[in-house]
Amino acid sequence: MSSGQLRLNTATGEWVIYAPTRRKRPQELCQQTQQNPSISQACPFCDNGNYSEPVIFDLPHPSKSGWLTRVIPNKYPVLMPCGNTERISQGIYLSMQGYGKHEVVIESPDHDQTPGTMTVEEVAAIIETYHQRYLALMADPKTMMAIIFRNHKKEAGASQPHPHSQIIATSFVPRHRRWQEEEALRYFDRWHRCVYCDMLAYESEEGKRVIEENDSFVAFVPYAAQVPCEVWIMPKQHKADFGNISELEKADFAVIFQSILCRLYRKLDNPAYNYVINTASRYKGEEPQLHWYCQILPRLTTPAGFELGAGISINPSIPEEDAAFLRDD
Amino acid sequence: MSSGQLRLNTATGEWVIYAPTRRKRPQELCQQTQQNPSISQACPFCDNGNYSEPVIFDLPHPSKSGWLTRVIPNKYPVLMPCGNTERISQGIYLSMQGYGKHEVVIESPDHDQTPGTMTVEEVAAIIETYHQRYLALMADPKTMMAIIFRNHKKEAGASQPHPHSQIIATSFVPRHRRWQEEEALRYFDRWHRCVYCDMLAYESEEGKRVIEENDSFVAFVPYAAQVPCEVWIMPKQHKADFGNISELEKADFAVIFQSILCRLYRKLDNPAYNYVINTASRYKGEEPQLHWYCQILPRLTTPAGFELGAGISINPSIPEEDAAFLRDD
Repeated sequence: MSSGQLRLNTATGEWVIYAPTRRKRPQELCQQTQQNPSISQACPFCDNGNYSEPVIFDLPHPSKSGWLTRVIPNKYPVLMPCGNTERISQGIYLSMQGYGKHEVVIESPDHDQTPGTMTVEEVAAIIETYHQRYLALMADPKTMMAIIFRNHKKEAGASQPHPHSQIIATSFVPRHRRWQEEEALRYFDRWHRCVYCDMLAYESEEGKRVIEENDSFVAFVPYAAQVPCEVWIMPKQHKADFGNISELEKADFAVIFQSILCRLYRKLDNPAYNYVINTASRYKGEEPQLHWYCQILPRLTTPAGFELGAGISINPSIPEEDAAFLRDD
Repeated sequence: MSSGQLRLNTATGEWVIYAPTRRKRPQELCQQTQQNPSISQACPFCDNGNYSEPVIFDLPHPSKSGWLTRVIPNKYPVLMPCGNTERISQGIYLSMQGYGKHEVVIESPDHDQTPGTMTVEEVAAIIETYHQRYLALMADPKTMMAIIFRNHKKEAGASQPHPHSQIIATSFVPRHRRWQEEEALRYFDRWHRCVYCDMLAYESEEGKRVIEENDSFVAFVPYAAQVPCEVWIMPKQHKADFGNISELEKADFAVIFQSILCRLYRKLDNPAYNYVINTASRYKGEEPQLHWYCQILPRLTTPAGFELGAGISINPSIPEEDAAFLRDD
């Protein structure tokens, strides 16, 4: 199977993924947008003993038979573990093979479950799965980053209703992440402190954007939230790499993550959202200027030409009011 | 009237706009997404002598009475020309008043017109309007950038069907643009050439991603297109600032722009899209490493958590095939 291709935008330094398994002709994409066809096939994530791909990982149920979470390869991977990561120069352009890994984390055997109604134990199983797969994927020396994310509902890019998230391991660090790393380094070089630690201290002190906190984490609406009800869940202990999360932190993360997902579900009537675990790329895991956190982005607004062209977000909401809205019981 | 607020994300250096005129509570946004209410009010852009805002600019019809294009202030501006651009420091954060201007370019008196079916003369009138308003907005020393963009259809963020585009003048340069300027400068410092000029020479030579060209412009699908059928229309003459477009270039731009919009309309069945004129920010207009161009982004795919979190685009299309598809008559 061909691994597809990555191409570098020479002007901006951004890699773009061309995934042959997701290949669509423009006409087909156009029809797809207009018709929104309903999916009538059997759920590929239900445990019908009929997976088209081998199971990578099972988190077994502690008391009865069966599993809590399961990890399988994505049937339509955007990157594949074949070929190599050599960069190929052609004129002014660079490309490489689409080397990487793309896994699906099936979050529950129950097709109708949804994170907003899961128990803390169920969310803890998902976090444990993220952690184990993250460590396994980063163990491949070709992996430069492992990106854990979830698309909730069709408006947020989900193609299947069965609860699942995804992990993509890439053989490159995107320019976008490097830009963020460079900004954090600039702050560190000026203040000799991690900007995220400073943010956390300030938010805890001020309190008005905090939704809740426990021994290890603070959940807050960031001061400059990009979208309404954006939430960051950040560990209190400075740690650049999600892979270094402790057992105690995993337990505390599950409690606060479950609570926030439940608040979003209840208060915004099960909204579409994306979340991503922002963590250091390879070689940056011990650096003092970076700090992992989970970023939740509800999809209540549509980004338009100004946002896409100028990279400026327009947020119709006020972070302090969003925090109060999500905090109040 | 309050001018709203801009807030800086201290970690990433990105400014976010909080626009009081667009204010929605999260509950309202949530309902809006789910119900998609139909708009039943009278069109605010039709020439019913009943504008709520004063007309800023009219491009008169050359032969009969009336106008070809008209510019009015946006009734729900994201930035407003009141207050000042002083940065306000509070703890670790920076904010400022939402100073700026937000104009609507009504592209035609005809409510049912659409760019894909306009004549070259009609498109030329729009370009002339962009140019005149761009110069006028940049004449305000507080304007750091003027961003010209269009949202076509609801899926691309349009709220009104009457053909229109928008111009937002900001009192800051977004980090996103600075990042792009820095990449281009790095290329220039290495090669002592404009990366966009190099790209243009390479594309013209290779030909396979070119859709069409004329004396002054090339329209092509970029080598690392982010989305299916992305098109860049780039002037052959090196010029960082759209404000410096010549009369001849305006005429040639109208011809190629009309043709591309028409191709998209015909071949993708009037798709949703955004376009933006990427141009130098203030003080950069004469620099040798930047080059203005018009970027058209059809909205045939939905960005998901991986794109939002890692900033990596996944394109299911192949640029060479998109170019052939758009080129073939």
